[in-house]
Amino acid sequence: MTAQQCFALTPGEPAGIGPDLCLLLAQQAQPAPLVAIASRELLADRAKQLGLTIELLTVSPQHWPDKPAAAGALYVWDTPLAAPAIPGKLTSANAAYVLETLTRAGQGCLDGTFAGMITAPVHKGVINEAGIAFSGHTEFLAELTHTQQVVMMLATRGLRVALVTTHLPLKDVAAAITAERLERVTRILHADLQSKFGIAQPRILVCGLNPHAGEGGHLGREEIEIIEPTLERLRTEGMNLIGPLPADTLFTPKYLEQADAVLAMYHDQGLPVLKFKGFGAALNVTLGLPIIRTSVDHGTALDLAGTGKVDIGSLQVALETAYQMAASGTA
Amino acid sequence: MTAQQCFALTPGEPAGIGPDLCLLLAQQAQPAPLVAIASRELLADRAKQLGLTIELLTVSPQHWPDKPAAAGALYVWDTPLAAPAIPGKLTSANAAYVLETLTRAGQGCLDGTFAGMITAPVHKGVINEAGIAFSGHTEFLAELTHTQQVVMMLATRGLRVALVTTHLPLKDVAAAITAERLERVTRILHADLQSKFGIAQPRILVCGLNPHAGEGGHLGREEIEIIEPTLERLRTEGMNLIGPLPADTLFTPKYLEQADAVLAMYHDQGLPVLKFKGFGAALNVTLGLPIIRTSVDHGTALDLAGTGKVDIGSLQVALETAYQMAASGTA
Repeated sequence: MTAQQCFALTPGEPAGIGPDLCLLLAQQAQPAPLVAIASRELLADRAKQLGLTIELLTVSPQHWPDKPAAAGALYVWDTPLAAPAIPGKLTSANAAYVLETLTRAGQGCLDGTFAGMITAPVHKGVINEAGIAFSGHTEFLAELTHTQQVVMMLATRGLRVALVTTHLPLKDVAAAITAERLERVTRILHADLQSKFGIAQPRILVCGLNPHAGEGGHLGREEIEIIEPTLERLRTEGMNLIGPLPADTLFTPKYLEQADAVLAMYHDQGLPVLKFKGFGAALNVTLGLPIIRTSVDHGTALDLAGTGKVDIGSLQVALETAYQMAASGTA
Repeated sequence: MTAQQCFALTPGEPAGIGPDLCLLLAQQAQPAPLVAIASRELLADRAKQLGLTIELLTVSPQHWPDKPAAAGALYVWDTPLAAPAIPGKLTSANAAYVLETLTRAGQGCLDGTFAGMITAPVHKGVINEAGIAFSGHTEFLAELTHTQQVVMMLATRGLRVALVTTHLPLKDVAAAITAERLERVTRILHADLQSKFGIAQPRILVCGLNPHAGEGGHLGREEIEIIEPTLERLRTEGMNLIGPLPADTLFTPKYLEQADAVLAMYHDQGLPVLKFKGFGAALNVTLGLPIIRTSVDHGTALDLAGTGKVDIGSLQVALETAYQMAASGTA
């Protein structure tokens, strides 16, 4: 039996549900060695609060595991907290700890220690309160890996939705849909579906920006002036791009059955359907990075930390997807 | 047995699939007398093309039916075409015919002849080509009934989605979300859920405009400056309004199970989920009119006219909903 490569799991904000999710998840055996990068003390305390029996197996760069842990056990790369973690109580004292876990995971992916990283939620606000400029996992990992452009993709079983723009006020979306941005994002989506998902010839459905995809220019001209010419240019390189299609037509079986991914122009055009279909089992994948990174699709749920009333569905599909990407990708 | 009030059915564009849908529908018995307002000759010809046996029973203002037709029969208020209708071939010569069928139906609803009207698709372009300014059923019926503001609502079994703005280029949406418009639309939605759907205390979920409903002002300020104060004001009148909520959170069972309708700020925020969930069985309801009007949610599908390869699912739910509205409403 050959040694298996490890995956990194970051429980994120210590006052949130991330540690709980990781502990609950470790009750099941994993197909690969999974290393939680977190405070061992935090995990032990939280397990006690939840009434969970867990065997925490300390690992480190001097000693990585080469096979999966048994059900009820979790490998931990101990990363000390600065202050005790109390469920539901944010403290900026632990902001640097959270970032240290991400740095360890990201660097480990870059240097080949880890096959990929899976992240539980962080709390942006408390990191910023600590005086550290931080706008999210995605941006942090882009900087760590020197990546210019990343693409946010959400997925659930049977549907993947990538976004051309993400966290912009709606009034700024139309101006942000430029030929340059659309081309960059489409190239990353296409390349990563090939290299990280093992899809030789990805079929991508592209939404219009306007209702009815502009209805021949009557409801907006961005389809005619920007989207169609850009897709046409990329098609000449062999990309299989269908659209621009009206968003309320595209998300129907006739189209979805033939597609590997949907490219939506903005957040609320693409994600409501994804979350509706994938309720409790959706995940976030950052495309464009030189590493594999998947994430849960929810927040820290501070009020649920320590209660055990949490659903591990999203973390499970985030893990499944990371394993599949590592197995089927060529990157 | 008391006489039942009739419903009006307009097959719309004669070159499209509307006549086909009406004929296919009439193969099943209806619970109420349904009067197709159309050319009798058109219906007879199209039935022949489709190989359908149908008994066309001529009715008129001098003689309305007082009980449902049997399966395989359809009441027809004969309304002559100006030119022969050939499946798939648009001709502006029949534009006035299409509008005459709508006028007959709308006037009949206003004067109490009909309990409601159900419309199959029309083709805006060919009506405009005839030199008649026409921007759709909704606007036509608003004018006919002297209604200032109407609200578009799409529905399927288990979900209703109304829109604050409809057919606007995306770049114009944010500016169109004013307190006045939001208030008018919310009042109409609330009033019609009560008076036309028989819901005593409607629970309405309201979407934010921006991703994450603005995330406390970080992703847009319309929630703070316009939406929240407007909802707060309407709540003091006793309306049960939940939100503004992020659109990608709202369309999940936790929220939807408790709601009678969703109010989305714009077309592609609300309709992709509705059409995804209600594929092939979604309908359009015009709220704010003094009459009951439901419609299919699809277009004329010119290429399918006369082929029989059409799905009557949307027309069926449009009929069901009109019947239910007439039975449960107080208007």
